[in-house]
Amino acid sequence: MPERAIGVFDSGVGGLTVLRELRSQIPDESLVYLGDTARVPYGTKSPPTVLRYAQEAARFLLAQRVKLLVVACNTASAVALDDLAERYQVPVIGVIEPGAQRALEITRNGRVGVIGTEGTVRSGAYERALHALRHDAVVFAAACPLFVPLAEEGWANHAIARLAAREYLAPLLDQGIDTLVLGCTHYPLLKQTLQEVAGPDVKLVDSARETAKAVARRLTDDHLLHHATPASPPRYFVTDIPDRFERVGGSFLGEQLQGVTTVSLD
Amino acid sequence: MPERAIGVFDSGVGGLTVLRELRSQIPDESLVYLGDTARVPYGTKSPPTVLRYAQEAARFLLAQRVKLLVVACNTASAVALDDLAERYQVPVIGVIEPGAQRALEITRNGRVGVIGTEGTVRSGAYERALHALRHDAVVFAAACPLFVPLAEEGWANHAIARLAAREYLAPLLDQGIDTLVLGCTHYPLLKQTLQEVAGPDVKLVDSARETAKAVARRLTDDHLLHHATPASPPRYFVTDIPDRFERVGGSFLGEQLQGVTTVSLD
Repeated sequence: MPERAIGVFDSGVGGLTVLRELRSQIPDESLVYLGDTARVPYGTKSPPTVLRYAQEAARFLLAQRVKLLVVACNTASAVALDDLAERYQVPVIGVIEPGAQRALEITRNGRVGVIGTEGTVRSGAYERALHALRHDAVVFAAACPLFVPLAEEGWANHAIARLAAREYLAPLLDQGIDTLVLGCTHYPLLKQTLQEVAGPDVKLVDSARETAKAVARRLTDDHLLHHATPASPPRYFVTDIPDRFERVGGSFLGEQLQGVTTVSLD
Repeated sequence: MPERAIGVFDSGVGGLTVLRELRSQIPDESLVYLGDTARVPYGTKSPPTVLRYAQEAARFLLAQRVKLLVVACNTASAVALDDLAERYQVPVIGVIEPGAQRALEITRNGRVGVIGTEGTVRSGAYERALHALRHDAVVFAAACPLFVPLAEEGWANHAIARLAAREYLAPLLDQGIDTLVLGCTHYPLLKQTLQEVAGPDVKLVDSARETAKAVARRLTDDHLLHHATPASPPRYFVTDIPDRFERVGGSFLGEQLQGVTTVSLD
């Protein structure tokens, strides 16, 4: 069992920030990544539609015999995590709980900001996760639809990104948050700009990093950690032709993307 | 036959700018609109995937017994128009040809700029259409991935939109274009900002408006124009739940959206 791969899925390239953290934190593990690029993005779609897409993605990865499933997409985590965890035998880890947990570890005033896609914010999933862990946490959430195209355009540190960040963060900063959860797997690319706009008194929570930590903990607890010969390189699957995924994904992964295969889920 | 409706489809809300022009130019016509909101956007997807989606959308509208099909999506027009025109009996009108034609009518120096989604620009469809009509036209195209989320966010006239427009248009303006084709059905919302950034010497071509003119001409030529009792209100179909479509679409249509039905294409 430990020698099996970890399965990671996202609607597109965003989840590669989670994959990158997994490789850095648990480098002995084999990884299989699925990006549902034919139907990206999930963030503007309805819960029933996202649930159906997530189930199809999970089925595909389980057919690859993975030992653990990472839902590396905040929208899918918000909507489908409980369903997938109930439906399948392998551990299923989402990106929301780890970020929420970390936010509550570091906040001093209990006022936490959350930014994400429209779908993630409207689902209220972060509020629920934060309140379940600390009932008196005060949560302020904002949808930032421009951040994903800005990250994919390579404009994460451009004046446009700063202007958009100012616009989106202003209402949260006005509320006196001291912690900001980056509730979308694209947002780690914007970290520098967000820190600049939020100022030094606000701590950022990188949910990709926290998710990778949660995976490592879970594998340790379940005696599923792999310690052996160097892991094989990650295998990448997408649902549209790989062209754009390879091009844009490289900057998310910090290295060139190779060996991407197209598959059909529907 | 003339009493039948016109079918209009797009990947999402963008095609509503075409529907709006149709209502204003040929108000006696009944209209059926399909937005493939479960799979929006098409602009970043590959030609084979977009072709499949367009075929499914066309089949749905033809089952509604429409007399003419408008492909109100530049990406789908670029990729699927010829296929659909060959496959079906009814006239099929796309958004590229009418915009290209108009651009060549108004350019004085033969240097034409085209802006659109990544998919539209990479397809080279505008270059082909412009060169087919005038072989010595000089065409400069730029993909503007931020314009769609800016329009949908209601930020069409915001400083962020001006900054993005400056960034995207600079290389085209440097080339001395005197005409700019808005090659995406979302872009008419950004007209004011684009005109401001392009300056008074550059004429904008609104492809939604030109497409509606082309539809009116074709119906006249084919004796399919409807002259009768007031047309029934447009019928709207989407492939995801109507919530977001109704909310965002209202600003594209210039009035409240009502009576939206969800259907499944796949």
